Amino acid sequence: MGRLSRIGVAIDSDLLRKFDALIHRRGYTNRSEAFRDLIRSELIGETAQSPESPVVATLTLVYDHHVRMLADKLTDLQHEHYPNILSTLHVHLDPDHCLEVLVLKGKAGAVRKIADRLLATKGVKHGRLTITTTGEGL
Amino acid sequence: MGRLSRIGVAIDSDLLRKFDALIHRRGYTNRSEAFRDLIRSELIGETAQSPESPVVATLTLVYDHHVRMLADKLTDLQHEHYPNILSTLHVHLDPDHCLEVLVLKGKAGAVRKIADRLLATKGVKHGRLTITTTGEGL
Amino acid sequence: MGRLSRIGVAIDSDLLRKFDALIHRRGYTNRSEAFRDLIRSELIGETAQSPESPVVATLTLVYDHHVRMLADKLTDLQHEHYPNILSTLHVHLDPDHCLEVLVLKGKAGAVRKIADRLLATKGVKHGRLTITTTGEGL
Amino acid sequence: MGRLSRIGVAIDSDLLRKFDALIHRRGYTNRSEAFRDLIRSELIGETAQSPESPVVATLTLVYDHHVRMLADKLTDLQHEHYPNILSTLHVHLDPDHCLEVLVLKGKAGAVRKIADRLLATKGVKHGRLTITTTGEGL
Repeated sequence: MGRLSRIGVAIDSDLLRKFDALIHRRGYTNRSEAFRDLIRSELIGETAQSPESPVVATLTLVYDHHVRMLADKLTDLQHEHYPNILSTLHVHLDPDHCLEVLVLKGKAGAVRKIADRLLATKGVKHGRLTITTTGEGL
Repeated sequence: MGRLSRIGVAIDSDLLRKFDALIHRRGYTNRSEAFRDLIRSELIGETAQSPESPVVATLTLVYDHHVRMLADKLTDLQHEHYPNILSTLHVHLDPDHCLEVLVLKGKAGAVRKIADRLLATKGVKHGRLTITTTGEGL
Repeated sequence: MGRLSRIGVAIDSDLLRKFDALIHRRGYTNRSEAFRDLIRSELIGETAQSPESPVVATLTLVYDHHVRMLADKLTDLQHEHYPNILSTLHVHLDPDHCLEVLVLKGKAGAVRKIADRLLATKGVKHGRLTITTTGEGL
Repeated sequence: MGRLSRIGVAIDSDLLRKFDALIHRRGYTNRSEAFRDLIRSELIGETAQSPESPVVATLTLVYDHHVRMLADKLTDLQHEHYPNILSTLHVHLDPDHCLEVLVLKGKAGAVRKIADRLLATKGVKHGRLTITTTGEGL
């Protein structure tokens, strides 16, 4: 964690009431925590835009395992980039479809490139990359 | 404006330093203002998702004015919905292309529908709807 | 416009039926037009990410004109960057609030920087930058 | 899979050349596959907006495991909603931080609500919900 600062923030009372209602709906019990989450989200958004930033990311893929050679291709691609892929989770969605989540670590640019390659593979029906933080300093 | 509340927020010193650097880069001279903007942005994001919310929006369209009847079609469509279209701005981008910005007002669902229709018109090459606030209570 | 190519696309019949229903709901009367719009949207998304790309953009601002000196500040800021600001549109939303839309042109990085400065100005309550195309080649 | 339809699409030659370059950069070897991915992405985007749609989703959380009782709270919350949580993956990022990915299944509205609760928990530093498809019909 590290040292805590206490700062004062001036907010129009109306706006504050609306914010309190919003964070209550989302399940926050603590207003400072909501502010910190907003800040971290802005910082991570900025980090993710710079290709050289170290990031952690998750890539969600949904694919049809009946597509010929697909599982092999996805495995090959992943092994090509094994230093950037920390781990994967697999769920059998239905008789045809698999969901796979990869946890990636590396520079934002490299991570995006690996994700693009996997998403472009024939048989992968949908996917999204979520860039998050390595945790450091947040 | 209305009455101002002063609240205290506890933030890890590291996180606060990073936030201060971020908002400095963006040109903020006042930390409270940055917090208020984050809050308003969350609130407007939530409002925009509910089709019944009253919103103001801007629709940006880029189109090729050489496409036969396009200008007429866009004008007709806009007149069909004139109570929701406050005003428009037109810029001649180059010999072929026009940019048009419409300011819309109404329920979020209705505004989205009008935007979809205009964006789907043949000859409209790109466009985006930006939902913002009516100003009230923010 | 330029020369037209006709290409063949293979799509699962189920997926095609769902796509046809989607574009019908959005008001398309022509499937090729819907495909072209999807393509252009991807291309513009990629362009917008590179700071050196020439772009056109619209910036939507909502502000409270009662805030002291705000109109002057916004005007000053805009004049500082007048070569990048093609035009603006102003709407009086209610007794307190103004909506202003700026049409910007320049490199994506420069345009974002101008937008950040304007959005960070005290009294500007909400805003969004929409990056679109200069029209060229799309 | 199911039956395949072959359709013709008319595209300006310039636009097509740019699209081909884009999908080549992303690693596609097949233009139809790129079109199908664009279509599926639009359809899933629409599905995700309707709270009643059945979806699969992944929730990425980064948290500080030193925060008192956090692991217990996250586990309790997850068990409260166990029918919607198919599986989770855990990665130890550094001495302080954990990354956890949850695979969720259910109606979009319910899934969002669970995600909001987990994201709002004190000690969870960042997170994102990615809504994807159950696979059915895509």
